[in-house]
Amino acid sequence: MWSAYKKEKLEKYEWAKKEAKVDDEIIPILDKLNEKENFVTLSSCSGRIAVIDLKNFGVKIDSEFIGKWHRNVEFLEVLECVKRCKRQGWLIHYPPIIHVACKDLQSAKSLMRIANEAGFRRSGLISLENLVVEISSLERLELPVAIEGKKIVDDDYLRIAVDLANKKLESGKKKLKRFEELMPFL
Amino acid sequence: MWSAYKKEKLEKYEWAKKEAKVDDEIIPILDKLNEKENFVTLSSCSGRIAVIDLKNFGVKIDSEFIGKWHRNVEFLEVLECVKRCKRQGWLIHYPPIIHVACKDLQSAKSLMRIANEAGFRRSGLISLENLVVEISSLERLELPVAIEGKKIVDDDYLRIAVDLANKKLESGKKKLKRFEELMPFL
Repeated sequence: MWSAYKKEKLEKYEWAKKEAKVDDEIIPILDKLNEKENFVTLSSCSGRIAVIDLKNFGVKIDSEFIGKWHRNVEFLEVLECVKRCKRQGWLIHYPPIIHVACKDLQSAKSLMRIANEAGFRRSGLISLENLVVEISSLERLELPVAIEGKKIVDDDYLRIAVDLANKKLESGKKKLKRFEELMPFL
Repeated sequence: MWSAYKKEKLEKYEWAKKEAKVDDEIIPILDKLNEKENFVTLSSCSGRIAVIDLKNFGVKIDSEFIGKWHRNVEFLEVLECVKRCKRQGWLIHYPPIIHVACKDLQSAKSLMRIANEAGFRRSGLISLENLVVEISSLERLELPVAIEGKKIVDDDYLRIAVDLANKKLESGKKKLKRFEELMPFL
């Protein structure tokens, strides 16, 4: 049953990789996880910075990504996106996230242990049906940049926020690196 | 073994309640959870807004809470705290969080189901030793307010940020309410 489940998920992963739907930076980690008998990766993000335009926070319906980057961003490209917000605009940094299905509880436990050691302090089993571990951390930046389509941040402040978002993104990537280094202990 | 573990944790909870170390608003939920045979609460927060002064994000050592509230805040009290930041200051809204130990996996599963239904989409088993479920959500606000002890937000922007932090806090409390209403299904 596990092998059939893993085979199916692995095919989806290979397809996503071929379609360039997986962040390049995270592929070596996902490949290494998938090579291990007891794990298969489901979805992932190496961390990102985004400008989102939405009706109201918490209301996902109608929300629109004005900009989305998996790399460090420049002040000017973010400013450009902020100006294009028509409703409530937010600048957000999301830490890396990886969803991994595990064959058994023991495997889930080892995975959570090395994830925590790597600095992903927000790791846990989010589904007990398929034993899915979510590997993540708390490092966020989440601030309003526009209200009713009007820019509310001045350039100096936005520069600082962009700089901190970049630093948080780099910090997430360092955690991914540490996680990769710890994988032999899995 | 479970009953001894639960007894010990319950005593800690009763002590914390007596010492007023538990948020009033969350007590009815914790009491209801603790009344059920298969659960015991470990720690909790009903959601809060804080101004933190730190050396650098990610560096918890040396970080200092300048202000911390479990209720809606006023612009002026936040401004006062921002001005007192000596290093890197952040205004943060943290969503509610509850840690609950469960007797068995089946109980953990039911708890995660109603937590998710209540809107706590970041719920999962964070320890497989004691089957600890973390009930939480993603709703955050996290923005820099001072750099090297210098205020970097103007009053208009800070007013908006405070208003949104209050709204997020209220949204968290609504989720707690929904969670409480769903508890008979546990």
